[in-house]
Amino acid sequence: MQSDWSRWFPLVQWLKDYKKETLISDSVAGVIVAVMLVPQGMAYAFLAGLPPQMGLYAGIIPLFIYGLLGSSRSLAVGPVAIASLMTGEAVSSFAQSGTELYIATAMVLALLTGLVLLLMYLLRLSALVNFLSHSVITGFTSAAALMIAVSQLKYVFGLEVERGDHFFGTLLNLLDGLPGTNLATVLISVLSFLLLWYCKQHLARVLRVIGISSGVADALAKAGPMFAILGGVLVVAVFELNQGHGVSIVGTIPAGFPDFQLLPFDLQWWQKLLPAAVLIALVGFLESVSVGTALASKRRERIKPDQELLALGAANLGAAFSGAYPVAGGFGRSMVNDASGARTTIASLITATGMTLTVLFFTSWFYFLPKAVLGVIVIMAVLPLIDLTGIRKTWRFNRADALTLAVTFVSVLLMGVEAGLIAGVVLSVALLLHRNSHPHMAVVGRVGDSEHFRNIERFDVQTNPGCLGLRIDENLYFANTRYIEDEVMVIVSRQPNLKHLVLICSAINFIDASALETLEMLRDNLKESGITLHLADVKGPVMDQLQETDFIEHMSPGKVFLSTHEAMQSLCEG
Amino acid sequence: MQSDWSRWFPLVQWLKDYKKETLISDSVAGVIVAVMLVPQGMAYAFLAGLPPQMGLYAGIIPLFIYGLLGSSRSLAVGPVAIASLMTGEAVSSFAQSGTELYIATAMVLALLTGLVLLLMYLLRLSALVNFLSHSVITGFTSAAALMIAVSQLKYVFGLEVERGDHFFGTLLNLLDGLPGTNLATVLISVLSFLLLWYCKQHLARVLRVIGISSGVADALAKAGPMFAILGGVLVVAVFELNQGHGVSIVGTIPAGFPDFQLLPFDLQWWQKLLPAAVLIALVGFLESVSVGTALASKRRERIKPDQELLALGAANLGAAFSGAYPVAGGFGRSMVNDASGARTTIASLITATGMTLTVLFFTSWFYFLPKAVLGVIVIMAVLPLIDLTGIRKTWRFNRADALTLAVTFVSVLLMGVEAGLIAGVVLSVALLLHRNSHPHMAVVGRVGDSEHFRNIERFDVQTNPGCLGLRIDENLYFANTRYIEDEVMVIVSRQPNLKHLVLICSAINFIDASALETLEMLRDNLKESGITLHLADVKGPVMDQLQETDFIEHMSPGKVFLSTHEAMQSLCEG
Repeated sequence: MQSDWSRWFPLVQWLKDYKKETLISDSVAGVIVAVMLVPQGMAYAFLAGLPPQMGLYAGIIPLFIYGLLGSSRSLAVGPVAIASLMTGEAVSSFAQSGTELYIATAMVLALLTGLVLLLMYLLRLSALVNFLSHSVITGFTSAAALMIAVSQLKYVFGLEVERGDHFFGTLLNLLDGLPGTNLATVLISVLSFLLLWYCKQHLARVLRVIGISSGVADALAKAGPMFAILGGVLVVAVFELNQGHGVSIVGTIPAGFPDFQLLPFDLQWWQKLLPAAVLIALVGFLESVSVGTALASKRRERIKPDQELLALGAANLGAAFSGAYPVAGGFGRSMVNDASGARTTIASLITATGMTLTVLFFTSWFYFLPKAVLGVIVIMAVLPLIDLTGIRKTWRFNRADALTLAVTFVSVLLMGVEAGLIAGVVLSVALLLHRNSHPHMAVVGRVGDSEHFRNIERFDVQTNPGCLGLRIDENLYFANTRYIEDEVMVIVSRQPNLKHLVLICSAINFIDASALETLEMLRDNLKESGITLHLADVKGPVMDQLQETDFIEHMSPGKVFLSTHEAMQSLCEG
Repeated sequence: MQSDWSRWFPLVQWLKDYKKETLISDSVAGVIVAVMLVPQGMAYAFLAGLPPQMGLYAGIIPLFIYGLLGSSRSLAVGPVAIASLMTGEAVSSFAQSGTELYIATAMVLALLTGLVLLLMYLLRLSALVNFLSHSVITGFTSAAALMIAVSQLKYVFGLEVERGDHFFGTLLNLLDGLPGTNLATVLISVLSFLLLWYCKQHLARVLRVIGISSGVADALAKAGPMFAILGGVLVVAVFELNQGHGVSIVGTIPAGFPDFQLLPFDLQWWQKLLPAAVLIALVGFLESVSVGTALASKRRERIKPDQELLALGAANLGAAFSGAYPVAGGFGRSMVNDASGARTTIASLITATGMTLTVLFFTSWFYFLPKAVLGVIVIMAVLPLIDLTGIRKTWRFNRADALTLAVTFVSVLLMGVEAGLIAGVVLSVALLLHRNSHPHMAVVGRVGDSEHFRNIERFDVQTNPGCLGLRIDENLYFANTRYIEDEVMVIVSRQPNLKHLVLICSAINFIDASALETLEMLRDNLKESGITLHLADVKGPVMDQLQETDFIEHMSPGKVFLSTHEAMQSLCEG
């Protein structure tokens, strides 16, 4: 029996056999993630058009909450790239970046995202992510990553340009602004890029070669963004690049813990933000569950999707009331968290503690931080999300999926993340229904003298001009009911002496109201043409459904037979 | 061989064996429909917030065009109730009823509706109506009919009230306005109602009893609305009810044929109207095809849905350029057209000629026509669309369909026809995917010493602790792939000594990219746990798909077996 506590707080269960080694392992992972999260938090806040400290705040209360409620041992929650992009897009249609209203709107968005997740938790709607097919996710993520990368280029080149209406607009604005490139900024960007690339590709190996233990070497390699930040701060501060050379810097970040925030209530405003909140909740949940599941299944463990809804919902409420913006489980940091040894959500609590210390004591260190370094960090973090291999593979595997992927990708670039995602989902569902709308149907005949009936086009079977056995290999529902009606009438019209049509229902698991309506019309139209409709091989649940209606009564003289054999014997061979 | 002409114009084919009796039959039907269409046209135009003559115009050019292009012998095209309601809702968010802009917008809407239908024709998208399930249609139609009926009550009571934001708002406004009821108007309404009810229920029988031939009796019974109109005009004109007693009348209707209209082009304006045009096109096409199919199948004939797209698209373009608004095939008039003897679309041409004569010579007759009579005519026409029996039946048959129906119904009343329809479609698709997201899976074992394998829960079969055969009874695609992955891991975790998992694919007809991704993850996760994944009974097309990828290569040492028998024999019994 689980205690009540551990039902709500998975951490309680894990603490029951918590050992000193686990604490050390968790702590190392927690510290490494904190070292990643400081620069990422500030960078993602910029991406969302928010002041950098909001990204740091997003790494405190939400992580404490997730640490208590989360069911994934190694998911690293906090500000993430795509939710930051979506926040920026949603909020910027309400307010000008940099204003009080903009900041308040971002916090309200976190509140609504949290409420949507909690509602999904209460209604056990974790299955909603099933609507996002792999192709939609790949197309969406790749396009979003591309948009994020391009949005950072203005920091990388030190330009003052506006965002366009869509991706290509932003790109054009950038090209127009290119003559204003700041050379000192570009130099910083290039150096940051080289440093990050070197840390990622070579540092761990080199450190190991010179005799440093492989755990420490890996940890140092993951601190690349922190090195870039410290390097950037030093270079700008020493050479006063922000004065004479126009390098744009982060500036003052207020120290200390954010105040508890009361959010203004305005129904109309909230209503307009709701669609964005729903999509951020869905996408954030999807990303978290995907990463969480992947990491858990390596250990033959599983996460609880519903518990994740609760944990992420509460984490977003925490974000809203602590001056932050929507959070989710991040892909990159979670991988690092897991690889660095996170065994329980104690690692999250350690990370949150590290972030708290940063906010309390170290914000002044980031005064001289060039925005270009943050831009490079973001670009390096999102480039792996552009999944060119996946696009190629999908194209070869299945054209419908490839079309979905391509349309989602282009729609996101042209119409923005929200409309693009919706377009992708609608198309994927439409193509699915289209595929199911032409089910396989077979006219069958008797195999020799046996009781077996098979497709007349594939087997040498006996048929009868007055009797026709027709097998439909699909559930009957609205997407295919018109096609089936048409096909039946075509098949019937080819056989002028037909008296009995036996529908073989062995492959039918359910019938919806549209199909019932169609069956009723078929039955009556056939009757007017002098043909009697019969059913055979009806599965139990379908029969129960039909008996709730007067369908079978009105079939008379048509009957329901247990098997095709019985039907044919009784109708045509008697 | 069909000639080229008859490929485009089904009428050409029918004229080849056109007889004098057919012409008489067509003419009678055409005249009867015209007698119905004059009052309905004016009434529906009012419903759409348009001047009455636009409803008459909608019965001229579109009918000539449909007569040439239509593939249904007895579909009666023209202004219809639901499209009129949708037109009114769409246009009134752009302009004030009664203004030039309002009228121009309605014509542009007809143009766009026509273009959408023609685009659907070019892309052969008649299957799009498959997205509208029976429950969505019933819920939508019933709610729309209720809205239409309530919208006419202000004419019935002679009130001057505004339409509300939604159905209940309109209802409240009506209740507020009730003290201003005009008694003379109510008297006219009650008399019209009694007259229509009498004509519909009793007139034909009474006439037959007094010796009038049953054809004439039926025709006279169908002229009820025309009698109501003539009676209303006479009563108002003789007693001057429009002067002293404040009965609201139709007033001057310009005589003569409308001018050819050039429509103003404004991309932004058109873009905003497009969603409404798409929905009017879909709903209009659906109504037309449903009625047309039903009437045709009585004669074991079929209509051509794609040809209908062409014919209705062209008819709407004709409406746009002749001063009318969106048209479709109407339910009630088509039934009457068919029952009155329409055998070809010549009947439509006769109706259109009758409407032309009305517009040329008789518009002045309708000056004194009380709006109350039109309101009563509309209410009597739409009440049968409120399908209470269907609602009850659906509830008993299938709760998911009943939920869809109820949500569509309430959404239409609360959010309007467009948003309500979309909500219904989204819900019906969501429930379908939800139902498909938990497919049946069976662990199987060998039946005795045979080569057959059956569900271990239902049959007495032999199993092996090192080998597991698992059959999945559903196609693998995005809606069920996460569930399947979870279930497989649960099943596997129950069997600690497992070495080989054989997925039996006999019921799998296709695999999408999401499922491939899941299979790859399953394969790799199982491998990490020391279990080898194998496939058996893979259908040809699925095998072809898999061979386009490196999935099978990476399965090694896992194999693809022709049958479950072969797999089990080779893996566990060797």
